[in-house]
Amino acid sequence: MDDRGETGLWLIGARGSVAATAITGLLALRAGLVPPTGSVTSAPSFGQVPLPAWDRIRPGGHDIAHTPLDKRAELLVDGGVLPHRVLTGVRTALAAVDADLRPGYHPATHAGSQLDAAARLSADITEFAERHGLARVVVLDVSSTEPVFPELPEHAELDALEAAMAEPGRIVLPPSSVAAYAALRAGCPYVGFTPSTGIRLPALEELARSLKLPYAGADGKTGETLVRTALAPMFTTRALAVRSWSGTNLLGGGDGMTLADAENVGSKLASKGRGLAELLGGEVTAPLHIDNVPELGEQKTAWDHVLFEGFLGARMTLQFTWSGYDSSLAAPLVLDLARLVSAAHARGHSGALGALGFFFKDPITDGEPEHRLAEQYAALTAWAATL
Amino acid sequence: MDDRGETGLWLIGARGSVAATAITGLLALRAGLVPPTGSVTSAPSFGQVPLPAWDRIRPGGHDIAHTPLDKRAELLVDGGVLPHRVLTGVRTALAAVDADLRPGYHPATHAGSQLDAAARLSADITEFAERHGLARVVVLDVSSTEPVFPELPEHAELDALEAAMAEPGRIVLPPSSVAAYAALRAGCPYVGFTPSTGIRLPALEELARSLKLPYAGADGKTGETLVRTALAPMFTTRALAVRSWSGTNLLGGGDGMTLADAENVGSKLASKGRGLAELLGGEVTAPLHIDNVPELGEQKTAWDHVLFEGFLGARMTLQFTWSGYDSSLAAPLVLDLARLVSAAHARGHSGALGALGFFFKDPITDGEPEHRLAEQYAALTAWAATL
Amino acid sequence: MDDRGETGLWLIGARGSVAATAITGLLALRAGLVPPTGSVTSAPSFGQVPLPAWDRIRPGGHDIAHTPLDKRAELLVDGGVLPHRVLTGVRTALAAVDADLRPGYHPATHAGSQLDAAARLSADITEFAERHGLARVVVLDVSSTEPVFPELPEHAELDALEAAMAEPGRIVLPPSSVAAYAALRAGCPYVGFTPSTGIRLPALEELARSLKLPYAGADGKTGETLVRTALAPMFTTRALAVRSWSGTNLLGGGDGMTLADAENVGSKLASKGRGLAELLGGEVTAPLHIDNVPELGEQKTAWDHVLFEGFLGARMTLQFTWSGYDSSLAAPLVLDLARLVSAAHARGHSGALGALGFFFKDPITDGEPEHRLAEQYAALTAWAATL
Amino acid sequence: MDDRGETGLWLIGARGSVAATAITGLLALRAGLVPPTGSVTSAPSFGQVPLPAWDRIRPGGHDIAHTPLDKRAELLVDGGVLPHRVLTGVRTALAAVDADLRPGYHPATHAGSQLDAAARLSADITEFAERHGLARVVVLDVSSTEPVFPELPEHAELDALEAAMAEPGRIVLPPSSVAAYAALRAGCPYVGFTPSTGIRLPALEELARSLKLPYAGADGKTGETLVRTALAPMFTTRALAVRSWSGTNLLGGGDGMTLADAENVGSKLASKGRGLAELLGGEVTAPLHIDNVPELGEQKTAWDHVLFEGFLGARMTLQFTWSGYDSSLAAPLVLDLARLVSAAHARGHSGALGALGFFFKDPITDGEPEHRLAEQYAALTAWAATL
Repeated sequence: MDDRGETGLWLIGARGSVAATAITGLLALRAGLVPPTGSVTSAPSFGQVPLPAWDRIRPGGHDIAHTPLDKRAELLVDGGVLPHRVLTGVRTALAAVDADLRPGYHPATHAGSQLDAAARLSADITEFAERHGLARVVVLDVSSTEPVFPELPEHAELDALEAAMAEPGRIVLPPSSVAAYAALRAGCPYVGFTPSTGIRLPALEELARSLKLPYAGADGKTGETLVRTALAPMFTTRALAVRSWSGTNLLGGGDGMTLADAENVGSKLASKGRGLAELLGGEVTAPLHIDNVPELGEQKTAWDHVLFEGFLGARMTLQFTWSGYDSSLAAPLVLDLARLVSAAHARGHSGALGALGFFFKDPITDGEPEHRLAEQYAALTAWAATL
Repeated sequence: MDDRGETGLWLIGARGSVAATAITGLLALRAGLVPPTGSVTSAPSFGQVPLPAWDRIRPGGHDIAHTPLDKRAELLVDGGVLPHRVLTGVRTALAAVDADLRPGYHPATHAGSQLDAAARLSADITEFAERHGLARVVVLDVSSTEPVFPELPEHAELDALEAAMAEPGRIVLPPSSVAAYAALRAGCPYVGFTPSTGIRLPALEELARSLKLPYAGADGKTGETLVRTALAPMFTTRALAVRSWSGTNLLGGGDGMTLADAENVGSKLASKGRGLAELLGGEVTAPLHIDNVPELGEQKTAWDHVLFEGFLGARMTLQFTWSGYDSSLAAPLVLDLARLVSAAHARGHSGALGALGFFFKDPITDGEPEHRLAEQYAALTAWAATL
Repeated sequence: MDDRGETGLWLIGARGSVAATAITGLLALRAGLVPPTGSVTSAPSFGQVPLPAWDRIRPGGHDIAHTPLDKRAELLVDGGVLPHRVLTGVRTALAAVDADLRPGYHPATHAGSQLDAAARLSADITEFAERHGLARVVVLDVSSTEPVFPELPEHAELDALEAAMAEPGRIVLPPSSVAAYAALRAGCPYVGFTPSTGIRLPALEELARSLKLPYAGADGKTGETLVRTALAPMFTTRALAVRSWSGTNLLGGGDGMTLADAENVGSKLASKGRGLAELLGGEVTAPLHIDNVPELGEQKTAWDHVLFEGFLGARMTLQFTWSGYDSSLAAPLVLDLARLVSAAHARGHSGALGALGFFFKDPITDGEPEHRLAEQYAALTAWAATL
Repeated sequence: MDDRGETGLWLIGARGSVAATAITGLLALRAGLVPPTGSVTSAPSFGQVPLPAWDRIRPGGHDIAHTPLDKRAELLVDGGVLPHRVLTGVRTALAAVDADLRPGYHPATHAGSQLDAAARLSADITEFAERHGLARVVVLDVSSTEPVFPELPEHAELDALEAAMAEPGRIVLPPSSVAAYAALRAGCPYVGFTPSTGIRLPALEELARSLKLPYAGADGKTGETLVRTALAPMFTTRALAVRSWSGTNLLGGGDGMTLADAENVGSKLASKGRGLAELLGGEVTAPLHIDNVPELGEQKTAWDHVLFEGFLGARMTLQFTWSGYDSSLAAPLVLDLARLVSAAHARGHSGALGALGFFFKDPITDGEPEHRLAEQYAALTAWAATL
């Protein structure tokens, strides 16, 4: 790859709402149609960081769906996520991106071994890089949340894993991990923006380290958890004792549908609960629900009820309702991550990029995860200053 | 004063709800009846700081009201602030504290000059210190919020101020500033926990500096503003553009009554608005109301509605409702401030203690005020480590 | 007028958001583009009532603004009130309606007497009726809320009023009342959908009765008050004692701007407060705010906090947040009122149509006003069955 | 029984929070310690109805628990349900009631047949009536919600049921139905205030009719559902199309614990969902959760989110949060029901008392159930006027 080239942003789930919003937004930013609202790395604090400019990022990606990007963008206009004038302004450029999308991998439609599948995915990415003379490609997963995948002995060690992957018909990895493996084999940094397994298997993390590739994740922090990680430290620094923290999430769109499935919801709920206990310094009663409310469309609404105790046992409450567009919240972070991971790769960073915890519900890190939002931001800007 | 002695905590407004809760709580903590929930300085981070222990703090104070402390405490039991068993456990000790309370100053009931009044207040404090062989006395204002007092030329310079104070019948200072002046003249550190003027006049700050006395304030951060200073940085670090931040406060108790008066509310609202603009980096539409709802009793409820814009202009909202007991929230901070200011005084600190901004809506500081809660906490613990 | 003709709907404030939504919606209903969601009179309960069909209602009106209807409708599309496809479908028809709009009356731009102004307004309506061979014209005020107008002796009696109106330059009536007078003089039923004075003056009600014309009002019930009149009877029938009912309204759009003016807000707040006390059987603490939050655009949000007492004095709360589009809520009621008042006029009804209280915050009625929503609906359907 | 005697109120679950609150409240009302806040039948509308006065109602009951009433009442004081002074005022009288409580039936502690168990329960009630010379006894179930009990063929017909009940060790009925059977066999009217099966089996309803006994139920309407039945008609009469209605209930106390069990929650959720669909005229997306949050103590909090569509498809929302004490809400209704059912029995009414639907989530009625709160109240007062 060529350091004078652009940065590729290869999206797993490239035809979904988050990806389509990120791509449309990138094209609109490049065209100067919109300000970079919601883009963390556009703040003055990142002014000296050598991040790729909007017109130096080229999107591509895999998806098992076939909806053209402009069609998906139209649905997002109807859903209130994209302004009509933005779509009008980037429609041609969107069609050009569509030409760089390739069919994703899914066990149900793939005949050979998972190793074959991964090889094909890798080849798609490599061709994309060569076709456009890219300096590097950041692979980023924004596909639908997967059901929890069982732990297998083969996940522990790379040789055993690859041997199992080579067996025809053997499903040793969930699709997100096949994609992560393919990314690494193509020499690309990897970011997991969903709660799916992705790179989070010992054998895959080992592979990343051995290839000197950086990676980050997991599960973009875009709503209820974002607010929780801003609020929980208020209780702890003020020595207010949280007694219960209840949450209900109403999701429309594809996310609602995927997460309605009780199995899928498992990985999302686990990811949310872990952070809360770590933030509060112990377990509290914390019932949590994710409901599919398709009528909400692209919107999601979360209600949280916090019961806490103050001086002399006084019982008090804080409630909040967050109402937002999932794709609008996630998309600029996708672009931020592409820029930051690209710069980290250029600078020779490898392994888990713990300093990116600010973006994630369930930060992948070598040490103890930090969940407090303000501390995460401080760590992020300090790290970015070294790039 | 004698460094081996106890620390005195002299409360202006000593018969009010906040003071009565703080005193009752202090006695209950000393008796081991309750855990120190809500006490910031009881956290492990302050384990190495040489703060006075609960049984080394002796409360006293001024008040223009005459309700005995145990009677006020009974009302607080009915209001849900104090548990019945706690009052039972400290009733005798409470009566002993009552013996250390003295009549406060109010222009309507005082015949001579304000300088005379201040001299009497100082003498009360000095006698208290001598009576109990105290090492030092921290004077802390928790009296009712005053109406906004006009700026006068005499406030600019100490000599001119004292000359005006000496004129019989002349009201050159609001009562809170007479109390602050008296505290300083008694050689005591001063803390303003209300939005009233208190020490915040050039002549008084000059006096504190010349006497090498530390001081802190203003306006305890115990509810809506506490949540705002935890949440606002979430929007700014995520580059989400807050478009409006509306707030309604429903207050019962004495605070509601005092603040219902449109003039009084002025100082409180100004204090709240200033911080929000500084937190968000600019003015936003931010209507704010404080309503007197006596039926709420000791409770206060705040509703905030935040309209913000994300990527590509998507409009989203966050609402929160905070419902708590004002006295339960304020009282432990009063004790925290007594401990920290006492330690700072012992260590020879003087002037504005900007590191105590964590406790205040409108921090008194020599530099630019920091309003972000997490940053305030970091500054507090770093400073405390130097005591 | 000719009973075989259409019904005219003459809107005062015809170029505003509510009117533009009502007109666009009427055209869309006529074209079968949308279902009649939000239209009370489209329910089966009104199936047997001889109401004019959508294609038998012809809109026209007065306005002091000049924005063409299609331009206003475009703004409403941007604001989320109108779907793009609906505007596309009715754009031509909208332009045709525009040709039937006439300049409204405003004291600042009118040189002669108010009687002259009224005569010109009447003539506009009469010409409209003749031009289209209308059976009757219902005049309905949806213009911006006026400041409170002082009570004058001339308002008590028609002759004195008309004499004063004849004096050049004399402002004896607010514009809404000039419009109501003009409507009556043109032989038209009148509906006041705003809190402005309109027909609510003894002299004007006398005129309506003497001319055998029906009228209705005042102040469309479209949000917070709608919910209050549904909820308050729950407390009273359950014998739960409401102790306080606090409300905050955040309004964007023109309504927010108009009501920000403290004088204007007076009439709106009075109208809201009156109903609550009547619903609860007595005064309760009920602070109420209306804030202008222009960033909300066409949306309005209301937060209500109800503190109530139950068995043995237990204190409990109900809070609600209502978030809607003012024009979307008001517009279908405008059409409902046009249909119902037209049918009442055809049937020979005259005077105050108290049975229409279901639609209003401050029902005009000959007897005691009924504010309970369910009882209002029962009265409405019972009355409609007699048409 | 003797018509000049008092009315007995026999509570199934007499040592639980609801019963203890009802009994304590009854004694306090009798002593004139409190006003009848929350008591529907104390309103002027019931002034002419021949209901038993507070001092003509004598409580007794069954419970499988052994906590004395005064101990339970102390816990309710701590939980904020009962004021301390009320308990003090009725403590002696409470102990006297305790002497009229008898051990309840539970399969786990009963050796013989269910027919034997029922005979013993009946005998307890009969002895209570004779001991106090009561005119009649209303049996009312406020015990913990049972798990859903399977439908059995024996439930269809009385002879078959009694034959099965006579088999030693055979569990053909849930405890609530054994209690209902026992009540009927003792010649008593029966009220089911919980979602448990109780009398709602064909064989038991047949028995009630054959014995000319009145009965009512089921599942007291005291919180979220109360609000829903007040609000839903607002949407339907205004032709606003509800698209989703999501609910989360946080329950502390015994109720939370019982309902946490997924099986138990079944009957409660079914009862709630049925009413909503009937209110809205069709099924809508309506996810509903009941969470056990023991830290809430006696409080329960419900959050509802309603997404609805208005004119031209505009999407709007209503949210509410209800926060109350379950026992405070239920207890006065228990007394109301005792009074009304007693009067109905005296008047010779028998069978399902559909006019009492106002009190229940899932009204037992011969015809179509009415769920709209205002209509239920109208039906109740009309019916009461005939007593």
